[in-house]
Amino acid sequence: MKMKHHFNISFPMLAILAASCASFPERHPQNTDLIFPKGERITNDNFVGNVYLQQLVSPDSLNNTQVGNVTFEPGARTKWHYHPGGQILLATGGVGYYQEKGRPKVILRKGDVIKCPPDVPHWHGASADTGFVQIAVTNTQNGPTVWLQAVTNEEYSSPVP
Amino acid sequence: MKMKHHFNISFPMLAILAASCASFPERHPQNTDLIFPKGERITNDNFVGNVYLQQLVSPDSLNNTQVGNVTFEPGARTKWHYHPGGQILLATGGVGYYQEKGRPKVILRKGDVIKCPPDVPHWHGASADTGFVQIAVTNTQNGPTVWLQAVTNEEYSSPVP
Repeated sequence: MKMKHHFNISFPMLAILAASCASFPERHPQNTDLIFPKGERITNDNFVGNVYLQQLVSPDSLNNTQVGNVTFEPGARTKWHYHPGGQILLATGGVGYYQEKGRPKVILRKGDVIKCPPDVPHWHGASADTGFVQIAVTNTQNGPTVWLQAVTNEEYSSPVP
Repeated sequence: MKMKHHFNISFPMLAILAASCASFPERHPQNTDLIFPKGERITNDNFVGNVYLQQLVSPDSLNNTQVGNVTFEPGARTKWHYHPGGQILLATGGVGYYQEKGRPKVILRKGDVIKCPPDVPHWHGASADTGFVQIAVTNTQNGPTVWLQAVTNEEYSSPVP
C-alpha cells in the first residue's frame, strides 16, 4: 500500500489520514518541518494545558516498546508520574522542561536525549513562552505509567541551575 | 551541567562533543535541519556503503531499549539481519528502503514508521539516489542483532509494488 507524500493539508487532516492508515508501513506524510503529525489533543487530566499526542507504535505481546510524538503548547506539562519500565525522551523541536524528583529542572531543546530510569517520578512539558515537541519511547514491560500529583507553579517556575 | 546550543560547527566536532558529553541530559546541539548528529562511520562489514551511527541511548540492566540515529548515504544498506527483541524504525529524512524476508521492498520517507517483529529477517538502507536518516529503536531483551547474508543487487534493485 502506497501513499504519495506531497500533500498540502492541515494537521487535523493529517491526523485523520494517519488514523485511517494502519497499514504497512505506517505512513505519516508531512510537508512541514515537523517529522510526525501533531495528533489529537489529550483530554485526560494527567496533563495541564494543551498537549497533543500522535501514537506512533503501540506495544504488543512481542515488543513492549511504545512510541508517541507529543506536542506541548507553551506552559503545558504533564503531572508528576513514573514508568515502571523506564522512558526515553528525544527532543525534536521547541524548548521544553524536564525534572526528576529531587533534582533541578533542566531545559530540553532539539537533539537532547533523556533516559529516565524505571520508577523515578518526573514531569516534562513546554517552556512558558515556547512550545515543545518530543518523541517518547516508553518501556511498558513492567506495567503502565503511574500518575501522581500536579506540578505546582513553584515547581514549574523553578530556576535552572 | 549546561551547554549552549548555538554552535556553528561541523559534524565531526559535534560527534566529539556528544561523545564527551555523557551528562544529564545528553546534549546533541544542532544548528542544522537535522535533529541528531551524524555520528561516526560504521566500519564493520554488516553494512555496505557509507553508513553513520550516532548512539543516542545504550541499553542497561534497567531498560533494554537501544536508540541510535543512523544515516545511510545513497546506495548504502545493511546486510540481512534480525533482532530477537524486535525493532522500530522512525524515518526522519531522505528516501530509504525497507524489506522483510518474503515481502516486497517498501520506500520510506520522513514520518514513516516501521515495526519489525522479533526474529524476522529484514534489511534497510538508502535509495540509490538519495540518502536516508532513521532513528532505530531496538529491543535488546532477547539478545543482540543476528547478522545474515548480504543484500544482493537484485534484491536491492527489486521493484516497489
